Amino acid sequence: MSIIPAPPARQAGTEPDSPWRSGGKRRRDRELKRDAVIRAAARAFDARGFHNTSLADIALALQVTKPTLYYYVENKEDLLFQCFLAGLEGIERTLAEALESHDDGRTRLRRVLRGYALAIASEYGWCMVRAADQDLGPERGAQVKARKAGIDQGIRRLIRAGIDDGSLGTLDPKLTAFAIAGALNWIAHWHRQDSSLRPETIAEEFIGFFERGLLPRPPQHRPSTP
Amino acid sequence: MSIIPAPPARQAGTEPDSPWRSGGKRRRDRELKRDAVIRAAARAFDARGFHNTSLADIALALQVTKPTLYYYVENKEDLLFQCFLAGLEGIERTLAEALESHDDGRTRLRRVLRGYALAIASEYGWCMVRAADQDLGPERGAQVKARKAGIDQGIRRLIRAGIDDGSLGTLDPKLTAFAIAGALNWIAHWHRQDSSLRPETIAEEFIGFFERGLLPRPPQHRPSTP
Repeated sequence: MSIIPAPPARQAGTEPDSPWRSGGKRRRDRELKRDAVIRAAARAFDARGFHNTSLADIALALQVTKPTLYYYVENKEDLLFQCFLAGLEGIERTLAEALESHDDGRTRLRRVLRGYALAIASEYGWCMVRAADQDLGPERGAQVKARKAGIDQGIRRLIRAGIDDGSLGTLDPKLTAFAIAGALNWIAHWHRQDSSLRPETIAEEFIGFFERGLLPRPPQHRPSTP
Repeated sequence: MSIIPAPPARQAGTEPDSPWRSGGKRRRDRELKRDAVIRAAARAFDARGFHNTSLADIALALQVTKPTLYYYVENKEDLLFQCFLAGLEGIERTLAEALESHDDGRTRLRRVLRGYALAIASEYGWCMVRAADQDLGPERGAQVKARKAGIDQGIRRLIRAGIDDGSLGTLDPKLTAFAIAGALNWIAHWHRQDSSLRPETIAEEFIGFFERGLLPRPPQHRPSTP
């Protein structure tokens, strides 16, 4: 697809998110525009569901033409996939960094869980967790499945590293990774994008609970959380 | 609906779950038959999804006629609702017992989380977690929502009780309840009914992780888990 984007319709709109309409400070960079398309789609899918959202709705929200969207994405399935990737890439980046780092398992795991929580609490959370796999089509669906499995394996590896270096207690890495991923994925089911609860607060509280658990800890063993 | 169940078709079937076909040991009790209908529906929905399962499929699995099913349930939405209730009632029972008990918060919470984990890991888990709310229709959907909210409130109450009596550490009851419910609900996304992993094992591992957390605990503070 190589349709040149239509010139932006200059309007005194109130939505601040469209790089096409930002008057004097118009940014032409393709990546920024593409990000805006994906973010608008993520918000629309989150608000109305995948099947109730058309490309025309997303074009309207961004005040661009539908052909402009095709400059950035192939079709609606691709758009859902790009939304998924936009959230996933943040987690994969922290995971790659953590796996290369020489810090202890606990520190590395905490970094990844923080990135994971922030991604799910972002506007991409719905696409990452609540969209139906079959809406992606078989090929993209298989890619999503493989990349989710990669994250699961990475988390298990960090748990094992923490058990081995003594920074974590003795746990079943597989079931613990499932419990953690479930708690984090579920954020997409209850967290509203318009909530006053900050994603950072959710991440800190969840990691605190994961690390310390429900039972009281004697003060000398309380971890020196930054 | 008061259609008298059709006389059982006596067949040398191999499926042991149909009380209509159990030859000499035929149990006429309506409740048992109703439970079998609901269990068969739960398994079919889990295996094929709600929209891909017809009442005719469920009747066929039980080797009864479709009118027989209408003796027990109103329609497919009602059947989904009954599957949801079959799982939910176990949790509500443990919650009601826990809220009346004089044990400490930790003990009472653990009992509820165990019942919750076993319900989600059962054949009813799919209906409880993965079925779409809109498939229940507005009235039953609202009931489901209210009863889920009741369980959430009950768990928060037990967490608060545990903080107050010192059996649990200081935590945010709301976010901790969300984290726990997410971890437990997610079991329905990864646990296969034909898995060799026993629901009791999942429950024990998850509760162990919830209570002790990821960080090592000194032996003298390790809880005396039964």
